[in-house]
Amino acid sequence: MQSAAECYPCFLNQTIKTARLSTNDPRRLKALLDEVASYLQFHPFNVVPPVLSEDIYRIITRETGAADPYRELKRRCIRQALRLYPEVKKRVAASPDPLRAAIQAALAGNVIDFGVKEEFDMAADVADLLDRIPVIDHYRDFQTGLARAGRILYLGDNAGETVFDRILIEALDRPVDYAVRSAPIINDALAEDARASGLSALARIVESGCGTPGIVLPRTSPEFRRLFRAADLIISKGQGNYEALSESGRPIFFLLKVKCEVVARHTGAPKGSLALISQRLRKKTSRAREK
Amino acid sequence: MQSAAECYPCFLNQTIKTARLSTNDPRRLKALLDEVASYLQFHPFNVVPPVLSEDIYRIITRETGAADPYRELKRRCIRQALRLYPEVKKRVAASPDPLRAAIQAALAGNVIDFGVKEEFDMAADVADLLDRIPVIDHYRDFQTGLARAGRILYLGDNAGETVFDRILIEALDRPVDYAVRSAPIINDALAEDARASGLSALARIVESGCGTPGIVLPRTSPEFRRLFRAADLIISKGQGNYEALSESGRPIFFLLKVKCEVVARHTGAPKGSLALISQRLRKKTSRAREK
Repeated sequence: MQSAAECYPCFLNQTIKTARLSTNDPRRLKALLDEVASYLQFHPFNVVPPVLSEDIYRIITRETGAADPYRELKRRCIRQALRLYPEVKKRVAASPDPLRAAIQAALAGNVIDFGVKEEFDMAADVADLLDRIPVIDHYRDFQTGLARAGRILYLGDNAGETVFDRILIEALDRPVDYAVRSAPIINDALAEDARASGLSALARIVESGCGTPGIVLPRTSPEFRRLFRAADLIISKGQGNYEALSESGRPIFFLLKVKCEVVARHTGAPKGSLALISQRLRKKTSRAREK
Repeated sequence: MQSAAECYPCFLNQTIKTARLSTNDPRRLKALLDEVASYLQFHPFNVVPPVLSEDIYRIITRETGAADPYRELKRRCIRQALRLYPEVKKRVAASPDPLRAAIQAALAGNVIDFGVKEEFDMAADVADLLDRIPVIDHYRDFQTGLARAGRILYLGDNAGETVFDRILIEALDRPVDYAVRSAPIINDALAEDARASGLSALARIVESGCGTPGIVLPRTSPEFRRLFRAADLIISKGQGNYEALSESGRPIFFLLKVKCEVVARHTGAPKGSLALISQRLRKKTSRAREK
């Protein structure tokens, strides 16, 4: 998915939010915004948003001197998610369709995001989303794909959300590689976050080889790309991974909360809604639409 | 009120929204954003937002060739507001305190705004706001000021809101000068909009002499400044006028819906709330706070 005009102010909003974790000096904030704007001016928008997002994040961390400004917030999110875990796990186990319920849990975990959204109340938001059926719901295709799948590649998103991913991975009952970012980027999960969430007992934690907030294949490591090509089924969490991989030909299932109008237009699911999108069916529909 | 870091992305959002009334070409939108960003880069933020806002609007209209892109929307808003008028007027007349109710009507009219907000449902929003008491509520000071006042200067804001201003002007029972912008700017009311709203029978319509979306005194005409200095009481509608006049020494009463975090911080009223602010009391409080 290419970047849109609306990404421009959104990048600047994210700049302010991230920079304010280190400084509230209006002149420093203005200077930083000028620098980010000047970066954006010299970049055409025919790239996926996570590419621009990573570059901007590196400008911010260089200027503020804070290499991982969300570190404390990420830890707090994981602790909070771990407190919610037993209750959510119990609800999933008691469900007539535990796989479906586990997907809902993983989707609900995607509310945890400091990138786009202003603020969220984790307990309330998760409870609210657990019963909300995705607006795009390719669950049957997912069941079919899963029945045939051996090894699964699971693309993680935010720290804290990782705890809810555990619930889905437990329900998959397959060997799973869980991919995290290789460098701090907003509140995205690193290997240490996956481990703190209890994922290492359930999956092999692998690094993407890059620090884009979404799997941008040309920026990943050769090892990661091998895994990506070999996986029977790929589960991709969150908007960033969707933005980066929406044109990929692999058997991906995107699980995401739609957080902005640009992704809403691209997916066809309204802002605020949940979606379980089979790449295979998505491509089929868009090809049919083009005819 | 000086511009804040958060105004930067907000200006770009407004640029997109205004430009999209004329074009959806991604390359033209990107080029326009680059130009606006480049303007912002060379301007310190120690000016009130409406100054930057007007300059940006002139860049947009020059580039898109649409001198008054909101014209049709403004007309539609006035027509819609005129349909709501009889019902709101009846509610005000039936109120135990018609002046208070008329202020509520004028405040409710301030939901009409294409500048900051994404979208609104006029009938529903107005109905919702009619009963909502302002979070900052200097009504008593307003009553005292009004009792002593001869000529009143009323600073209009958006087209459509003008119809709700009529209700307050009818309740004031004083000679009123109703100020409008002299050039198109977003959906702000021009003289033609005030007339189409039925204001010319109740007030003398005067132009500010400028096209800033908020009364920036150095940009107004000498005639307007004379009125501004001579008025016994000034009623100022909306955020733009508040932003521009928050440091003025005149007896102003600001009636506004707080539409962004920057104004929320400055007024102390949360985003989304209504406020009736006496400049005299505001200055007293901030002086006391500084001690």
